[in-house]
Amino acid sequence: MAKSWATFGVDLHLEPTGAGGLRRGLTDALRDAVRTGRLAPGTRLPSSRTLAADLGIARNTVAEAYGDLVAEGWLTARQGSGTLVAERPVVPPTGTAPRRREPGRPTHNLVPGTPDLASFPRAEWLRAARRAVTGAPSDAFGYGDPRGRPELRAALAGYLSRARGVRTHPDGVLVCAGFSQGLRILGPVLRARGARTVAVESYGLPRHWELLTAAGLGTRPLPYDELGTDTRELAGAQAALITPSHQFPMGTALRSGRRAAVVEWARRTGGLVLEDDYDGEFRYDRQPVGALQGLDPDHVVYLGTASKSLAPGLRLAWMVLPPALVEECAAAKGQVDNCGVLDQLTLAEFLTSGAYDRHVRAARLRYRRRRDALVAALAARAPEVRATGIAAGLHAVLRLPPGTEQSVIQAAAWQGLALHGLSALRHEAAVTDPLDALVVGYGTPPDHAWAGALEALCRVLP
Amino acid sequence: MAKSWATFGVDLHLEPTGAGGLRRGLTDALRDAVRTGRLAPGTRLPSSRTLAADLGIARNTVAEAYGDLVAEGWLTARQGSGTLVAERPVVPPTGTAPRRREPGRPTHNLVPGTPDLASFPRAEWLRAARRAVTGAPSDAFGYGDPRGRPELRAALAGYLSRARGVRTHPDGVLVCAGFSQGLRILGPVLRARGARTVAVESYGLPRHWELLTAAGLGTRPLPYDELGTDTRELAGAQAALITPSHQFPMGTALRSGRRAAVVEWARRTGGLVLEDDYDGEFRYDRQPVGALQGLDPDHVVYLGTASKSLAPGLRLAWMVLPPALVEECAAAKGQVDNCGVLDQLTLAEFLTSGAYDRHVRAARLRYRRRRDALVAALAARAPEVRATGIAAGLHAVLRLPPGTEQSVIQAAAWQGLALHGLSALRHEAAVTDPLDALVVGYGTPPDHAWAGALEALCRVLP
Repeated sequence: MAKSWATFGVDLHLEPTGAGGLRRGLTDALRDAVRTGRLAPGTRLPSSRTLAADLGIARNTVAEAYGDLVAEGWLTARQGSGTLVAERPVVPPTGTAPRRREPGRPTHNLVPGTPDLASFPRAEWLRAARRAVTGAPSDAFGYGDPRGRPELRAALAGYLSRARGVRTHPDGVLVCAGFSQGLRILGPVLRARGARTVAVESYGLPRHWELLTAAGLGTRPLPYDELGTDTRELAGAQAALITPSHQFPMGTALRSGRRAAVVEWARRTGGLVLEDDYDGEFRYDRQPVGALQGLDPDHVVYLGTASKSLAPGLRLAWMVLPPALVEECAAAKGQVDNCGVLDQLTLAEFLTSGAYDRHVRAARLRYRRRRDALVAALAARAPEVRATGIAAGLHAVLRLPPGTEQSVIQAAAWQGLALHGLSALRHEAAVTDPLDALVVGYGTPPDHAWAGALEALCRVLP
Repeated sequence: MAKSWATFGVDLHLEPTGAGGLRRGLTDALRDAVRTGRLAPGTRLPSSRTLAADLGIARNTVAEAYGDLVAEGWLTARQGSGTLVAERPVVPPTGTAPRRREPGRPTHNLVPGTPDLASFPRAEWLRAARRAVTGAPSDAFGYGDPRGRPELRAALAGYLSRARGVRTHPDGVLVCAGFSQGLRILGPVLRARGARTVAVESYGLPRHWELLTAAGLGTRPLPYDELGTDTRELAGAQAALITPSHQFPMGTALRSGRRAAVVEWARRTGGLVLEDDYDGEFRYDRQPVGALQGLDPDHVVYLGTASKSLAPGLRLAWMVLPPALVEECAAAKGQVDNCGVLDQLTLAEFLTSGAYDRHVRAARLRYRRRRDALVAALAARAPEVRATGIAAGLHAVLRLPPGTEQSVIQAAAWQGLALHGLSALRHEAAVTDPLDALVVGYGTPPDHAWAGALEALCRVLP
């Protein structure tokens, strides 16, 4: 009976015909599959016993068909490895896309925004994954709650309270696939609540501002002066997106008077503060600045991420929402944007087991050493260049003589050194005078490449 | 599966994570089931290993719960016979009304769309994860390519070619976080290319149609007749979203003439076919229907998913795009929607190591047995009810006498059985005469609860 063609056919997608007998039909179907490339070179075929059982035919018939095709050169049989599709030229399918040109990879990468990927704690992560996946209830593997797994929301609520002074409950936490996804969720929610203008900082990531614009929200930059972002000019905005713990990219911490001002504004006007705490774990010279959210959990959305502390590839971030926004944001997120549950469960285990704290502590030490090496190298090799914003984080701002930013970046590109200039991170409506500067991501290179990157940087500095 | 523990398994699923810990929750649920007579004296319980695997909890927890109840006298354990419900007087539940379940947590779940989550291959997946994460290059942990990891795109191109007859190259594959995300990406791309109307099927998932509507596209249902979806009436549409291998939910395969017709239409008009191949791996009675995409890779977008073959919680799906659409779709996806790289790398390893094929084979056998049990139970218990669409997939359509669908669903809800009616899956503009039917997801319950769910189903059928 043909019943087991299902089992066989799905795996090999053969259409053997009855004409000419079973052996002939099977041989023809297999040969056709190999010739057209549907069975790729190196593919291992089922054993003759398995296939015969699946097909309900004699094992010998399968063995003979395999033998015929080995003799013809379509298959290879090796003791201990079974029967494989032979390596041979295959007629390519029609309509393949042209290969995308791989851009030349720079030798040294000091672009900010990425931690040292080589230090991702693979073994620790796998241990946590084993515990998390083995112990998970079966229903964890289903479509899930847009807010995220309860295990992770509980672990984050505990960690953020302890490490960042965030005031919340697991019900206030919403897991998302990166800060940008969080912002994409918040934009339409703000718009639906009547917001039209979001105050942003004079410096920041244009792609964040674009996400707000895409939601129909205007962005208006707050002034930036020698004390940092000035939060006293919020009139006319219904929300404010800021980086209070470590301004991106300038590196300043929001002054306490200005912290108070933005919270006071939110309370008075019913405005909402979006606190982007992208690298709050990494502070070197003083106690970390606690999250602004702790001042007023009803008017601040706290946004954190694993992209700097662990790796961007995890695509895991979190929002801590005022109670009034939880339902709306969960509905706006919906199931389309759910994150994979296995990584969520693993991060929960990673946090509660203490592995996250250990990893952050080790990473902080490593980045601090790099920061110190950068400062020392600048003092010795480029004393004209002042590094600012270096008390925390994974990047520094190097102030350059006026008018030299573009030429330094071009010189760096010639030397295989990827760098970002500050001008690319300045809001087009900012009233602050433009500054020439580099934004150097000293967390980006792997350890073995750091010294070389630093050397290359020193060579291109004026 | 022994019918004797049908009810039992279901009751365990009721509160497996109750307050007081897993062991306490399990013990309480079991004791309650014995005391009220829902577990009859003499009923043999599954082995602790089986039940632990089904529930996704530690075997020890089950063994301890059994031990507690043996000590209390509710169960008996005999060498060689396993664990049985003790012979003792049963206290009937208070009141005379049938026991009702908590709303929102039905005892039996036959809603289609979810595979058996308890059968997720945890150990195999973790093995693949260890190989994948250990062997990945460091830059895999970065923000990544919106198209997905190259390892996964290559593995999918090979698998889909071999198993589904899809013609592609890794460059044509775009990884996404579920079918719905794929559709959300495609909608605006179609709109930007001038599409205004997408032909859909008379039956399908309203949330898919809504994603198209949200992109500014109208949906117009194709006729559905006794031969299935009629693809000959595509005039006026610029794209068509169809389930050719296994119509959802009706279960028919698109007739070869109608397969040819839709491809011919796409060629002639420059239209685009969106092929939703949600459960192509699971075909039982004939050889699988190859993907429509193989007929014309330039005019068909193939969409597949790990949600049925592995688990929805992975949030991994894939599109195979015509070359002309690759860049646009990758740009439309962007980094905001990137999927976690660790699961991508693990799925690539799972596919290339053969673990995916082994899992699908085992799952196919399990679902096929359930399908057979469903058909046999219907023949014996509800001969008036005709099951259709049963040659493949994880669900069946049970045709009911006219006018009875809503009352059967309500009766089912009363008995704690979650069911979907066909009317909820009918396009509001469909011209097809409405049919009364149930869409029964026989893949949804865990193994230990399947027999009970089937029994409950038979009880509510007319």
